[in-house]
Amino acid sequence: MQLSELSERSGVSAASVKYYLREGLLPAGTPVSARKAEYDDDHLRRLRLIRAMLSVGGMSVSQARDVLAVAEDPAFGRHERLGIAQYLLPPQVTPPDPAPDAAAHAAWTALRAEILALLRDELGWQITEFAPALDTLTRALTTLRDLGYRADVAFLQRYGEALRPIAEAEYQVIEEIPQVEEAIEATIAYTVLYEPVVLALRRLAHEDVSARLHPGTPNPGTPD
Amino acid sequence: MQLSELSERSGVSAASVKYYLREGLLPAGTPVSARKAEYDDDHLRRLRLIRAMLSVGGMSVSQARDVLAVAEDPAFGRHERLGIAQYLLPPQVTPPDPAPDAAAHAAWTALRAEILALLRDELGWQITEFAPALDTLTRALTTLRDLGYRADVAFLQRYGEALRPIAEAEYQVIEEIPQVEEAIEATIAYTVLYEPVVLALRRLAHEDVSARLHPGTPNPGTPD
Repeated sequence: MQLSELSERSGVSAASVKYYLREGLLPAGTPVSARKAEYDDDHLRRLRLIRAMLSVGGMSVSQARDVLAVAEDPAFGRHERLGIAQYLLPPQVTPPDPAPDAAAHAAWTALRAEILALLRDELGWQITEFAPALDTLTRALTTLRDLGYRADVAFLQRYGEALRPIAEAEYQVIEEIPQVEEAIEATIAYTVLYEPVVLALRRLAHEDVSARLHPGTPNPGTPD
Repeated sequence: MQLSELSERSGVSAASVKYYLREGLLPAGTPVSARKAEYDDDHLRRLRLIRAMLSVGGMSVSQARDVLAVAEDPAFGRHERLGIAQYLLPPQVTPPDPAPDAAAHAAWTALRAEILALLRDELGWQITEFAPALDTLTRALTTLRDLGYRADVAFLQRYGEALRPIAEAEYQVIEEIPQVEEAIEATIAYTVLYEPVVLALRRLAHEDVSARLHPGTPNPGTPD
């Protein structure tokens, strides 16, 4: 197909397709004349992945390029390929710099190590020390403590135990996709797009718990 | 205490304290001279709640005023008071307008009703039809479907069942706070500040699931 058809079938504008070609995210088509090239289904699939990385996943073009480099390199296994995509998703929390505030840096490092030890030792999770989600957890607990709320590392065990069965069921869908590019695309889409689902259901569960603790009282938002 | 001490002890700048006084979020102090007023621990507690609503909860000043109006009105029970605070937290998802796109509006309304029926009938949750989290769920499933992913309403049951025990344990902390203003403050803080915790642990659980499915392969981010 020509670029115009590729644009139409993928729903990606021709200008964006040309930009991805220039940036090397999308491989060049097969030249058929001095000014025309042919594109195929691999290009369509790649455009879906690019859209997942940039729009759904919120990655930068250079992060997307990193994911593609790993996806195409036969030296990397499937676990690594999907892992690198997940590791590059926002939020990317930066630990405090040791230079201006050595105490804050040391406290961060100690708390992060405590969290990792809990997840590995108490939950038995096989996770690397490089996982950015460890920094997200460290920041969340630090913020809670700074604001004067209790935030024990031990609390995390309960959350982890409750979330593990969801994660297993979710991952089953990814595992059944044989093609790596499609699996990466699905990893990004499911990771990001189900996040509001998890958070919204947690809030609704709170409402149910509160309603049961206070039976017979009117509900929030009930019209007069 | 005077305004300067109130500012110092609360960590809220004097300019912000004056702004909250003008906007009616913070009640006036007791006048001790033409230009001075005395403030007490109720003001300190109210400033903590205001900070929770505006900074942590991301509410507007007028939304914060709505929460305070309900919090102070003896006609409202505890379930309603905490509920209205939760309902005003972001994200506030707006359903599609019926005027420009009647079909999208009808699809939204039908999907939202389907979600509410599942949560009430299959999970037995006591939730109102006004809960904004129902709109968040409707948008998430709509987005997934628009992008070509499977997003069955029935999937939500699994998430709901996994999250219910977390929500119950979390809510226990709120329930033990006798004073309503403090309970509202804690509702906002725990709801919002534990959201990244839930999402980060879900990602780490995915990594563990993937590592077990692909044993012996290197992990993402492992140095060469």
